[in-house]
Amino acid sequence: MPTTRLEAFSDGVFAIAMTLLVLEVRVHPTEGQSLLAALLHAWPSYVAYAVSFTVIGIMWVNHHATFDRVERADRRLLFLNLVLLGVVAFLPFPTALLAEYLRESPDDARTAAVLYSCVMLMASLSFALVWGYLDRHGELLVQGIEEHVAGTALRRSYVGVAVYATTILVALWSPMAALVCYAAVALFYVFAERPVSRGGGRG
Amino acid sequence: MPTTRLEAFSDGVFAIAMTLLVLEVRVHPTEGQSLLAALLHAWPSYVAYAVSFTVIGIMWVNHHATFDRVERADRRLLFLNLVLLGVVAFLPFPTALLAEYLRESPDDARTAAVLYSCVMLMASLSFALVWGYLDRHGELLVQGIEEHVAGTALRRSYVGVAVYATTILVALWSPMAALVCYAAVALFYVFAERPVSRGGGRG
Amino acid sequence: MPTTRLEAFSDGVFAIAMTLLVLEVRVHPTEGQSLLAALLHAWPSYVAYAVSFTVIGIMWVNHHATFDRVERADRRLLFLNLVLLGVVAFLPFPTALLAEYLRESPDDARTAAVLYSCVMLMASLSFALVWGYLDRHGELLVQGIEEHVAGTALRRSYVGVAVYATTILVALWSPMAALVCYAAVALFYVFAERPVSRGGGRG
Amino acid sequence: MPTTRLEAFSDGVFAIAMTLLVLEVRVHPTEGQSLLAALLHAWPSYVAYAVSFTVIGIMWVNHHATFDRVERADRRLLFLNLVLLGVVAFLPFPTALLAEYLRESPDDARTAAVLYSCVMLMASLSFALVWGYLDRHGELLVQGIEEHVAGTALRRSYVGVAVYATTILVALWSPMAALVCYAAVALFYVFAERPVSRGGGRG
Repeated sequence: MPTTRLEAFSDGVFAIAMTLLVLEVRVHPTEGQSLLAALLHAWPSYVAYAVSFTVIGIMWVNHHATFDRVERADRRLLFLNLVLLGVVAFLPFPTALLAEYLRESPDDARTAAVLYSCVMLMASLSFALVWGYLDRHGELLVQGIEEHVAGTALRRSYVGVAVYATTILVALWSPMAALVCYAAVALFYVFAERPVSRGGGRG
Repeated sequence: MPTTRLEAFSDGVFAIAMTLLVLEVRVHPTEGQSLLAALLHAWPSYVAYAVSFTVIGIMWVNHHATFDRVERADRRLLFLNLVLLGVVAFLPFPTALLAEYLRESPDDARTAAVLYSCVMLMASLSFALVWGYLDRHGELLVQGIEEHVAGTALRRSYVGVAVYATTILVALWSPMAALVCYAAVALFYVFAERPVSRGGGRG
Repeated sequence: MPTTRLEAFSDGVFAIAMTLLVLEVRVHPTEGQSLLAALLHAWPSYVAYAVSFTVIGIMWVNHHATFDRVERADRRLLFLNLVLLGVVAFLPFPTALLAEYLRESPDDARTAAVLYSCVMLMASLSFALVWGYLDRHGELLVQGIEEHVAGTALRRSYVGVAVYATTILVALWSPMAALVCYAAVALFYVFAERPVSRGGGRG
Repeated sequence: MPTTRLEAFSDGVFAIAMTLLVLEVRVHPTEGQSLLAALLHAWPSYVAYAVSFTVIGIMWVNHHATFDRVERADRRLLFLNLVLLGVVAFLPFPTALLAEYLRESPDDARTAAVLYSCVMLMASLSFALVWGYLDRHGELLVQGIEEHVAGTALRRSYVGVAVYATTILVALWSPMAALVCYAAVALFYVFAERPVSRGGGRG
């Protein structure tokens, strides 16, 4: 199966998941509280929105770069991609929890941040699974691509896995610090990463 | 009418239905309950999300394989496809009910599971309707396709109909067992089915 | 501007509006009511879902047929199309109200049904506006198309306008009868209408 | 990277953001209030829906016109576009607040209108950022395009920035007047603006 329709379908899921994030941004002024105070109080919602939107955007860019190098997809790759999309489409849920519980009791904030880290970890692992599969099935790649590309991308995606595994520990220590980490990682990928199209991937 | 725009439109509906599933994943900690306890208690939500996401994903793959073999769509096929999409787009509703009521009173759990089975049965029937129509209207198929393909796909889609009809009985007996069945059927289609593109369909 | 991207964009809005309809299907069992009883009680939701899904589907088919005949879009046609999309994307709102209030007090049921009729009327009018514009700007149509096509389609779209204007009166008399009318009109368009591609339109 | 997939992805986000607006249109009849009274009372919802739908539609048209002139996107342009999409996808939130608080206490109405103005301002700034980047990186533009196009579009997008900055002042003075301004600006862009394709942009 050629990857055109697979890419269009995946694009749809990425675009919808990003846009649904806004539905979880909500303010509920308490009795006697002004809207302005409620809006200011809800700042974790905006940060969570911005971070998750950026993260899914980066994943879209890398998904794009990944499947540009794939000539055709077999059934297994199709379903690995489905797992990846299932994790991406799930992100609005931990995002909403992170925004809602970041300033609740320390225990609940920790739970929300650990969950967010875990889902990001699963996303990294899905990318690693896709690249691992492509590494073992070089015949699916576009002809003429350098031999080692999938291997390099796979090793790179392990970095993402390690980073998000580390944020679990950070989240256990301080949910607020974890939020800073998520934002920093996202900004790092935006500004510093060599694009996957010159030979890498992202987890 | 050529099927390109029909396929793109259907892809859109599949992608949106899959992504909307996450909106039904919710936790509501009760008074004094920790977020962690509430998250653990909500496990049927995650299972239901994963199963429905996978099921719609499989349907997308098979929809793809089906319409790859269709040369052009007439008005009736367009509306049969609309029925199919209407059932797929409805799936978030029984999914949410299954997740919410699986551990409520036995009667309500049974109702939710039977409803889920019924909607899956309707999806199977829609696929059977599409293949039945293509079987009777071979002139819509891509030229040079083997004569018996639509017939084979139709017979195969009856298997899906029979399977989901059986899960209604399972759901009446034990909603939890029905959930296991849905997951097993989904995994079976992911791992075991010969792809439709070598001559089959799926209900 | 060629119409390819315009059509893809419109397809997206149609697909999303159709799929969002399911978010308005909800059951809220009252104290002591079984889920089964609540589900049966919510039947107007399913009918409203099915009718609106079919109606938007039909509009998609006719939008498709309309823009197949348009060679290029100017700015004004672009915004007429935007008006049409704005009405289509609004449909989930009156659909939800119709489902929720159909069996409430007679006054509220009437209000909900009249609103539904009015939005459908606006959709018909939008189609008429598009065809009226194309009738006056034949230079936008695909070359070699029969002269009178836009005029015929325009006259046909007046039929849709008249039909939905009539359902306002029906809704004032009996909201339930209006629901039957919406379903009947939708089924009529599915089964009986000569396709627009042989020379007509639909309001 | 060629811009085809970028445009398709952006189209998806625009279409979804527009269609999600309807989810924020809600009526909640108070005790003893008729549905009709509640619907009439909710008029700011419809105005806000219409204005935001039109605004996002205009942005889509201009996004279209912008990227028609871009030959290929580098990583930075990709992320500038992501910022733009992030602001557009956020619009349903201030739209909902504007609709809900326009007739609440003067302070809350002012807050809601200022927020709406600020998000529109950010959208204008995003467009200015994109054109500013294209102005400095003419090599990304389609060959043979007039030298000054990006500069002209950039200067034009400053007009949008100035207009929406002004509406912040209007919103502080009178939220209702600000709503009139948003509608007037949208209508102005629909009817009066020379299309970007003859040499301009919009912020």
